[in-house]
Amino acid sequence: MNLRLQRLTLWLKNSEADLALIQDPSNLLYLTGFECEPHERLLALFILPGQSPFIVCPRLEENRLRLSGWSDTIITYEDAEDPWQKIAACLKERGMETFTKAAVEVEQLSYMRAEALRSLSPNSRLISVNEELGRLRSVKDDREIETMKKAAHLADEGVKAGIAALKEGCTELDVVAHIEYEMKRKGVRAMSFSTMVLFGEKTGDPHGTPGTRRLKKGDLVLFDLGVVWEGYCSDITRTVAFHSIEEETRQIYETVLKAQTAALNACRPGAPIGEIDRVARTIIKEAGYGPYFPHRLGHGLGIEAHESPSIHEENRELFTAGLAFTVEPGVYIPGKGGIRIEDDVVITAEGHERLTRFPKELQIVN
Amino acid sequence: MNLRLQRLTLWLKNSEADLALIQDPSNLLYLTGFECEPHERLLALFILPGQSPFIVCPRLEENRLRLSGWSDTIITYEDAEDPWQKIAACLKERGMETFTKAAVEVEQLSYMRAEALRSLSPNSRLISVNEELGRLRSVKDDREIETMKKAAHLADEGVKAGIAALKEGCTELDVVAHIEYEMKRKGVRAMSFSTMVLFGEKTGDPHGTPGTRRLKKGDLVLFDLGVVWEGYCSDITRTVAFHSIEEETRQIYETVLKAQTAALNACRPGAPIGEIDRVARTIIKEAGYGPYFPHRLGHGLGIEAHESPSIHEENRELFTAGLAFTVEPGVYIPGKGGIRIEDDVVITAEGHERLTRFPKELQIVN
Repeated sequence: MNLRLQRLTLWLKNSEADLALIQDPSNLLYLTGFECEPHERLLALFILPGQSPFIVCPRLEENRLRLSGWSDTIITYEDAEDPWQKIAACLKERGMETFTKAAVEVEQLSYMRAEALRSLSPNSRLISVNEELGRLRSVKDDREIETMKKAAHLADEGVKAGIAALKEGCTELDVVAHIEYEMKRKGVRAMSFSTMVLFGEKTGDPHGTPGTRRLKKGDLVLFDLGVVWEGYCSDITRTVAFHSIEEETRQIYETVLKAQTAALNACRPGAPIGEIDRVARTIIKEAGYGPYFPHRLGHGLGIEAHESPSIHEENRELFTAGLAFTVEPGVYIPGKGGIRIEDDVVITAEGHERLTRFPKELQIVN
Repeated sequence: MNLRLQRLTLWLKNSEADLALIQDPSNLLYLTGFECEPHERLLALFILPGQSPFIVCPRLEENRLRLSGWSDTIITYEDAEDPWQKIAACLKERGMETFTKAAVEVEQLSYMRAEALRSLSPNSRLISVNEELGRLRSVKDDREIETMKKAAHLADEGVKAGIAALKEGCTELDVVAHIEYEMKRKGVRAMSFSTMVLFGEKTGDPHGTPGTRRLKKGDLVLFDLGVVWEGYCSDITRTVAFHSIEEETRQIYETVLKAQTAALNACRPGAPIGEIDRVARTIIKEAGYGPYFPHRLGHGLGIEAHESPSIHEENRELFTAGLAFTVEPGVYIPGKGGIRIEDDVVITAEGHERLTRFPKELQIVN
């Protein structure tokens, strides 16, 4: 059993849980190294303290699971079969016909699957494994950080490709196409989320969608993108001006950059996580843009583009070495335009290291 | 209230449910026309028979929700707030401080959210809204079919772009990059799933992943791709040979094509859904490749790439006009190669219409 599974098993013992059911693909990847996308089919790892774990797997995933190196039991089922009958049989074989406490991913496990699990042992109680898995996953080891550096470097290259593709009259989707083409040519299999390229007034919506808006001189251009590299995500945002920028917009840019830099400088082990949100938010409020910063400062980053910890004002937990997350203040004036600057960061023994390195001084692209 | 919401409300009344909680983005899109990706944030529609519905929404999605045309109540919350307190207050205002039966998406609602809902009214019982929503969504209206035809046409173009990109020595990811570039240039915002391009022996895995395998003469090339167009998905698979094909492989190709054609010909209103899986499976079994066809024949298609109905042998429901789904038999010899041929189909009053139109005769690409 690998170290990650051992740690989780220890936690299960301490929590007096009889078993854990893990079925979220990112948790499966973390615990087993197996990368899968089973869609609506159940692909689940059962961890039983004191016994060896087993995986229940659709037959058409079996071969890939074996190739991934999983050496414990695999139980396969066909599309027309009910996997829960096979699970019941397997638990019975191991003397677990009934159980009293099962740890599950309460944030990802569907109500239907939770009920299917409970129906195997109707007096059982479900507890959450999310917090513990979140804690384990949030602290990255050296190998994970190396991988994330590569993912971040590719995100830098993505912004570079995006800027190179800007031409008067091109559409947002043209630029998305160029960025993703360049990323795939560099061996990237998947972006970590839908690439965002927004022009002009469309940057005023923090969750806008790229479309056929054409680039004009004087537009802001916002890039928000990331790649998945060897299972780990990056996430960068840069905002540039095309040909020219209005004076007020330049001042907003400088405010956001000042807020982002101050928040980065406050990233160090032992500091409360919420503090960096407050540091950035105060600068934006004092500049008069408080109401135009409608989201938290950032989010944890790793196997998923959004994971633990959440970087918001009320988070009183402390930074520890190995935490990886985004720092991304923004100011959005609806109908006019918005600016966001985002880096990926990891907490080190002494302070922090920035993973994304693309320059942040205001660029006027011609 | 639109017709879709009216239909679901009627079902809620007949089921004696006090409310429905809908939070899956594809169901929200179907019921409200609002396209969202709230990640881990709760964005939920509450339907209350006899009262107007409301949506609980993260503040940073509010503007887009209003622009989408939603004219009923919107309750917003900040990242640091608990949306369930606001939901409790809103239900109380409407005289729903307690309720006895709530309909939820048991297949998508997380156990945690189900418990949060139940904690508002501890004696309440949850019932599934999935079957009814699946039924409603599975029958496409004329406008949906028109949109799906456009999505299918773009998938045809994707295969064409993929074949045009084949050059000796290119990698699978190069070809993925070309296809997705061409799609985005045509205005496609998102592929309906990770584009699959596999070469040679890698086609032997029905769920293989594109990588840096280089194209050689004599390789099979499998394309499996689709686009999202105005909220609706397409999904096509074609397999071609590069420069030459072995005689046994050609026979497998003809077997799969025969199976696919026979299954398509059996698509008509009133026929049992499972029958077309049996029709295709029998042809493949009789040719001696039964063990190498490890998945169901197809799946429903619409707002999601996989939705209702499931096209497997045991499905005894009957085809009705408007059902849209894939027909995709395949034969995969591990370590050697595989062939899959997939079309999107909609059941019509008289029979069926094929939405994907790319040719299916074996192509030897030079």
